[in-house]
Amino acid sequence: MLWRDDKCRVVLVADPDHAGYCRVIWQAHLKEMTDLADADQLHCMRVVLAVERALRNVLKPHKINLAEFGNLTPHLHWHVIARDVHDAHFPNPIWGARQRQTRHGATQLSASRLREQLTFEISNLLQ
Amino acid sequence: MLWRDDKCRVVLVADPDHAGYCRVIWQAHLKEMTDLADADQLHCMRVVLAVERALRNVLKPHKINLAEFGNLTPHLHWHVIARDVHDAHFPNPIWGARQRQTRHGATQLSASRLREQLTFEISNLLQ
Repeated sequence: MLWRDDKCRVVLVADPDHAGYCRVIWQAHLKEMTDLADADQLHCMRVVLAVERALRNVLKPHKINLAEFGNLTPHLHWHVIARDVHDAHFPNPIWGARQRQTRHGATQLSASRLREQLTFEISNLLQ
Repeated sequence: MLWRDDKCRVVLVADPDHAGYCRVIWQAHLKEMTDLADADQLHCMRVVLAVERALRNVLKPHKINLAEFGNLTPHLHWHVIARDVHDAHFPNPIWGARQRQTRHGATQLSASRLREQLTFEISNLLQ
């Protein structure tokens, strides 16, 4: 867990191919963004974009990918993923065909240091 | 084109596998949501979620999928896709492995009628 409040939580996903992969998970059981009240939609996107900004600050990725699917798990959650031109799937979405075996997208930072820095950035941005 | 203002435009994508597939394209050449000013982030999400609501109203899909990638085209744009359990890729994202040949995800509505209804709904929601 990187951050949480009473509405949602932010976790770092343990994905061997993609180091900077976070999820924002809404606490209440709802399916779609348009099931949220207006204020909650704003809050949710504020958190998603704080995670985007934190990943940019810490990892300086080539691109951020944002996605909200929930086809298998119809509980509102966002994927926020730092992409690198050398990562396993680039330029495909990470759900597309693998392009290479390399784990080049991984950061030089240790997992614990990455977790620490993202926690710091997100908390700071959402103060 | 389904809708536009001076900031962004909404188009219906001609995808034979996915009838209710829209894109929201930001006019200014920017790469990431966090490159937008706060007010523009809000505006962009307001339009994206109006398209989500319009697709729900018109097509009653199983799930909406939202995505902002831009790995190949680093110009801010959102995919807003109505998903059906019988569509070509479900439960995968539409960028994942095809699951079936059927075009079952297609609506009974003609393309022109769908376009008309979505235009009406989006305009209404963004008034």
